Amino acid sequence: MSGGYSFDISYGKMRVPVYRVYATPLEGISAIPESAFTGRPNTLFALEVDVEVFGRNFFPAYEKGDNSNVVATDSMKNFVLRQALSYEGATLEGFLEYLGRNLLAAYSHMEALRVSGRELPFHYVPVPHQERFEQSEVLFSRAHGDYAVASLDLARDEQQHPTLSNHRCGQVGLELFKVTGSSFTRFYRDEYTTLPEREDRPLFIYLDVFWKYGEVADMLAADHQRYVPAEQVRDLLQTVFHEFVSESIQHLVYEMGKRLLDRFPQLAEVSFEAQNRTRDPMAVSSVDERVKVYSDPFPAYGLIKLTLSR
Amino acid sequence: MSGGYSFDISYGKMRVPVYRVYATPLEGISAIPESAFTGRPNTLFALEVDVEVFGRNFFPAYEKGDNSNVVATDSMKNFVLRQALSYEGATLEGFLEYLGRNLLAAYSHMEALRVSGRELPFHYVPVPHQERFEQSEVLFSRAHGDYAVASLDLARDEQQHPTLSNHRCGQVGLELFKVTGSSFTRFYRDEYTTLPEREDRPLFIYLDVFWKYGEVADMLAADHQRYVPAEQVRDLLQTVFHEFVSESIQHLVYEMGKRLLDRFPQLAEVSFEAQNRTRDPMAVSSVDERVKVYSDPFPAYGLIKLTLSR
Amino acid sequence: MSGGYSFDISYGKMRVPVYRVYATPLEGISAIPESAFTGRPNTLFALEVDVEVFGRNFFPAYEKGDNSNVVATDSMKNFVLRQALSYEGATLEGFLEYLGRNLLAAYSHMEALRVSGRELPFHYVPVPHQERFEQSEVLFSRAHGDYAVASLDLARDEQQHPTLSNHRCGQVGLELFKVTGSSFTRFYRDEYTTLPEREDRPLFIYLDVFWKYGEVADMLAADHQRYVPAEQVRDLLQTVFHEFVSESIQHLVYEMGKRLLDRFPQLAEVSFEAQNRTRDPMAVSSVDERVKVYSDPFPAYGLIKLTLSR
Amino acid sequence: MSGGYSFDISYGKMRVPVYRVYATPLEGISAIPESAFTGRPNTLFALEVDVEVFGRNFFPAYEKGDNSNVVATDSMKNFVLRQALSYEGATLEGFLEYLGRNLLAAYSHMEALRVSGRELPFHYVPVPHQERFEQSEVLFSRAHGDYAVASLDLARDEQQHPTLSNHRCGQVGLELFKVTGSSFTRFYRDEYTTLPEREDRPLFIYLDVFWKYGEVADMLAADHQRYVPAEQVRDLLQTVFHEFVSESIQHLVYEMGKRLLDRFPQLAEVSFEAQNRTRDPMAVSSVDERVKVYSDPFPAYGLIKLTLSR
Repeated sequence: MSGGYSFDISYGKMRVPVYRVYATPLEGISAIPESAFTGRPNTLFALEVDVEVFGRNFFPAYEKGDNSNVVATDSMKNFVLRQALSYEGATLEGFLEYLGRNLLAAYSHMEALRVSGRELPFHYVPVPHQERFEQSEVLFSRAHGDYAVASLDLARDEQQHPTLSNHRCGQVGLELFKVTGSSFTRFYRDEYTTLPEREDRPLFIYLDVFWKYGEVADMLAADHQRYVPAEQVRDLLQTVFHEFVSESIQHLVYEMGKRLLDRFPQLAEVSFEAQNRTRDPMAVSSVDERVKVYSDPFPAYGLIKLTLSR
Repeated sequence: MSGGYSFDISYGKMRVPVYRVYATPLEGISAIPESAFTGRPNTLFALEVDVEVFGRNFFPAYEKGDNSNVVATDSMKNFVLRQALSYEGATLEGFLEYLGRNLLAAYSHMEALRVSGRELPFHYVPVPHQERFEQSEVLFSRAHGDYAVASLDLARDEQQHPTLSNHRCGQVGLELFKVTGSSFTRFYRDEYTTLPEREDRPLFIYLDVFWKYGEVADMLAADHQRYVPAEQVRDLLQTVFHEFVSESIQHLVYEMGKRLLDRFPQLAEVSFEAQNRTRDPMAVSSVDERVKVYSDPFPAYGLIKLTLSR
Repeated sequence: MSGGYSFDISYGKMRVPVYRVYATPLEGISAIPESAFTGRPNTLFALEVDVEVFGRNFFPAYEKGDNSNVVATDSMKNFVLRQALSYEGATLEGFLEYLGRNLLAAYSHMEALRVSGRELPFHYVPVPHQERFEQSEVLFSRAHGDYAVASLDLARDEQQHPTLSNHRCGQVGLELFKVTGSSFTRFYRDEYTTLPEREDRPLFIYLDVFWKYGEVADMLAADHQRYVPAEQVRDLLQTVFHEFVSESIQHLVYEMGKRLLDRFPQLAEVSFEAQNRTRDPMAVSSVDERVKVYSDPFPAYGLIKLTLSR
Repeated sequence: MSGGYSFDISYGKMRVPVYRVYATPLEGISAIPESAFTGRPNTLFALEVDVEVFGRNFFPAYEKGDNSNVVATDSMKNFVLRQALSYEGATLEGFLEYLGRNLLAAYSHMEALRVSGRELPFHYVPVPHQERFEQSEVLFSRAHGDYAVASLDLARDEQQHPTLSNHRCGQVGLELFKVTGSSFTRFYRDEYTTLPEREDRPLFIYLDVFWKYGEVADMLAADHQRYVPAEQVRDLLQTVFHEFVSESIQHLVYEMGKRLLDRFPQLAEVSFEAQNRTRDPMAVSSVDERVKVYSDPFPAYGLIKLTLSR
C-alpha cells in the first residue's frame, strides 16, 4: 500500500540482440523417429533477450523519484552482452538460466526475475566442396520462419539462493500448408452458417507450440540426453501433420499433443495456438481435379487452443 | 481428463473487421479539466473484434474429430457483423457486452466467452465551410497512432444467465516525445554502468494504459455519466506528462496513475506499460544550447510497468 | 567499360534518423481557401534522410577493393547529423538542398548526389491553459499517418558548382474514407466481371501525391511566399474529396490534379498514386438505409496513377 | 493534352494472391557447379501478381467519369486466377508472359501492360520414410526469406500483336551473415570519420539481385535448357560470398556480378542492391579470440548498387 493505493511493479530491458559466435556445439541429443536432428555446431548463436525485474525495493523510484536502487536498463543490456560472452553451454534455456542466476547474484535488491529469449534463426548455407555440397562453416542465411523461444522465472528461496520457479519453452511461427488430406464437415449449422462443408480442404495453419518439463534438471543438464530440442519438436509436428487426415484443426493439434507427450516422457505439459489460414478455392480444372487455384481468404482467422498435461 | 491427460481448450475468431456507419452518437459524457472531449458523432464506428469461446462441450472435436457442437468460426464472423448492425449503443465496451450476451443466448453449449475489441481509429477531417473550417460529416482519415481497446469476459451464473466476470479497458500505442523537462540521475552505478546521468533528457515514451471499473454498471450505463472515455484518459496522460518534471519513467507513470484514480473515482484500478524510447544526443549548438540534434538509440528498450489499485 | 563489361554504380546511407529541436519556424506562407495552415513552430523538426552518391571515381573499390576514395557511409551519417544542427532554414526541401550542396563542397570526388527525406510526423498535443486548450510547447505525439517527402538530385555544372538537376516533393500515406457520395457504375462488363455496379459506395483510398515546381527558386526562397507546404496540399486534397461526387478514383484524382495546378501556379506537375481500399458491404438496416456494416475486402487492390503537367 | 494539361495514366490490380496446386514440374535445367538445383515439382506454385495497364483509351474515365472502357480491377483479379488454372508451364516468367499475352488478346483497348510477380516461397518438409527422410509430397512450410520476382512489359507491334518490350528477373530479400573473412580498411578519412578500420568484420548483408536475358526466347523456351532459375542464382551468390575475402561490399558484389555473367552467357545484364547490416562488436573473449559477441548497429544502413552489362 502507498498513499492509500496497492501497487504492483516491474521493469526491465526488452529485445537485447545478441550474436555470439563460436558458442559450444549442441551435442548428446537423443534421436527420435520423426526428426533427423541430433545437434548443431552453434557457430552463430543468435537471440533476442528480455529481462524483467520484480521487487518492492524499486518502489521509491515510482513514489518519490528516488533512483538510488534503480539499475539502469542500459546497464542490464551491458550485463546481458557480457554474459553471452562467458556462457559455456549450448542451449537457449541454459543461457537464460545462467543469465538470470548471475543477475540475482549481482543485485541483491532484485527479488525475482523473468528472463526470456527468442532465437534469431540462421540457416546453414550449402556450398560446393569436393564434388558435393556441404554446409558452409562461415556463411549463414537469416531465416524469418519459425523460431525457438523460452521464458524462465527465477526467484529466491529462504536462503536467498536463486531458484527456478517456472519455465516455458516453445517453437513459434510455423506456417504449414497441406495441399490435400484434411477435411471439415458435419459442423454445427444455423442461420449464421454460410461456410460449405469441405471433404478435402487445403489446410494452412500458423502454429505456435509450447512445452514444460516435469523436472527442470532435464532441461538444464549438461549432457543434453533428456533435453528436448525445438528442432525435434518442429519436425515431429510436421510429421504428424503429414501423416494424419484431420477432421478439424482441433483434431489435428490433439493428435500432435498426444504424440509429443508420448515421445518425450520428460515433458509434463504441451500447448498449442493454431491459426486457421486456409486459402479459399477459386477454380478447379475440368481435366484433372487435383489441379486447383486458391487465393487469400477474408482476413479474420480462426484460433484454436489446446493445453495437454499429464 | 482424457486418455490419461488433463486438457484446457478454447477456440474462436480473431480480428473481424467491422465498419458500422451512422452508429448512435456518444453523448452525456462528464467533462474533466484535462480534456476537451465530451462526445463524438460515431458516424464511422470502426473496430476489430475477437471472440474466444470456452467450454468442455467442444472436446469431442479435439478427441474424436466430432464437429457436431463446433460453431464454425466463419459463422462467428457472420454473427459479429450482424450484431454490429443491430447494436444501438455508442461505446466499444457496450458493443462487446451486447455481442457476448447474444452469443451466450444463441449457443447454449458455450460455457464462457472472451470478447475483445480494438478501435480502428479515424480522425475527422477539417474542410472549409462559410469562412471557417469544420469537421467533414462524410470524410474521415484513418489514423495509425494510439487507439482504444477493451476485453470482456462473460460467463453463466447458476441460472445459466450471462454475467460479466471480468473486464479491462485501455488506450494503447501512445508515443509521446517531451523535448525538455525530464531527468534521469542518481541511479545505481557499478561496473556494468556506461549510461551518463542526464539532467534534461528528450524523453520519448511509448505508452499503453488500462483501467477497470469498480462497478461495471458505470461502464455500461446508457446515460454515459460515469463512463470513462479513452479520449479523456489519453488527454489526461498527456497533460500530466506536459506538466510534470519527472525523475524517471517510473516516477512519471506513478504520477499519471494517481491523477487517473483521483479524477475518476469510478475506476478501481489503472495500469501502465511504458517503453523508454528516448533518443540519443548527437550534437549541441554552441550558440543556443536549446538547439540540439538527436538520433535513434540502440534498438533494445526499457520497459516500465505499474498497476495501481484502490 | 571494365573487364569487358559496362557498369553503373552508386552507394550511400539510407534512413538516417534526425531529430532537430528548436529549428527555425516556418513563416510567410500564403494562405489558400482549402486549408487553415499558414506555418509551424518547428520545435521538433524530425526526418529520415537518405544520401546516394554517384561517380566513377568509386569504381576502384568495386574492381580492385581499393577503398581510398570511399567515404564510409558511417561518415555520411555523421555529416548528415552535423548539418542538421547548423541548418538555419525551416523546410524539408531546404534542408536537403543545404545538405547536398555541402556534401558536394566537401567531397570533390563525388560527381552527383541524390538526397531524400521523409518527415517523421509529430502532432502538437492540446493541454489546458487558462480555461482553454492550447498546443503544448514541449510535448509532441508521434503520428503514423501521412507524411511529407522530398527528393533532390544535385550535379555539378561545368565550373564544378553544385546545381539542382531534378526534384520531387510529396505527401504520402493518406488514408481517406468517404462514407457516402461516391459511385462506380457503367464500367466494361464481360465474362470475367463479377463486381456489381454501386451507385453509392464507401470509397476508401490510400493516396500518395507528388509535385514539382516550375522554378526551384520558389521551393527554396527564404521568404516562403511561393513555397507549397505539404500540409496545404493534403488539406486541398481532402477538401476536393469531401466536395466531389466521383464516378471512379480516376475521376477523383483528375479533379484533385486540376485543383492543385489551379491553386498553385508555381507548380509544373502533380502526380498521384491512389489505391482502392473500399470496404465490402455486409449488411444494411431495414429501418434506416444509411445504417450499414462494411468489412474488409479481398486483399488485392486497385491502383490508379495520374501525372498531370502544364 | 487535355484542358491545357499533358497527362500520363495507368491503372491495374496489385498483389493478387495465387496458389496453384499441381502445376507442371520444372525440368530440363542445366546444372552449374555452385548449385545442387536442377528442378522442382511445382506441387504448390504460389505467387502474388500485379497487373498494370497503359493506354490513352482510359482517359475519359479521368476526364469525364466515363467508365465505359474501364475493365474493373476486380475483373482483372478474376482473369489472373483463371489464367493460373490454365497455365501449362513451369516458371514465374512463363506464367507472366502467358497472362500478359492473354490480357492483350482479350482487351483490344489496352495498349500496353506491365505484369509482375513475386514468389510466395514454400519449402519442402522432410518426413520419415522407410528409415530415411524424404520431402513430403503434400506438406509445405511457408518461408519468409528470399524469393523470386519477375516483371514483364508487353506492348503491341504494328500488327497489334503482343510483343515483349522489356523484362527483369530477380531474387530479392537474401540476408547473409559471414562470421569471418571480410575486411573494410584504408577508406577515406576526414573530420567526419569515426568508424575504425576492421581487418575482420562480421559482414551481414541484405541483398537483392536482378538479371536480364540477351534473348527472351532463352527465358521462355519450354525445354528450360537456357532458363536461369532463381535458385541457382541464389546458390551462386552464396558460394561467391563463402569463398571470397572482400575488401568491401562494393568489392563483393562486383565479384558476384562477374561470376554470374561468366556462368550464364545467356544473360545480358545483372544488377545488385546490397545493404550493409554488419553487426557491432561488443565483446571479445580473452581466452579464444574467435569467440565474440556482436549486437545490433545504429539503424541507418549503407546501400551499395552495381549494374554490370556486357
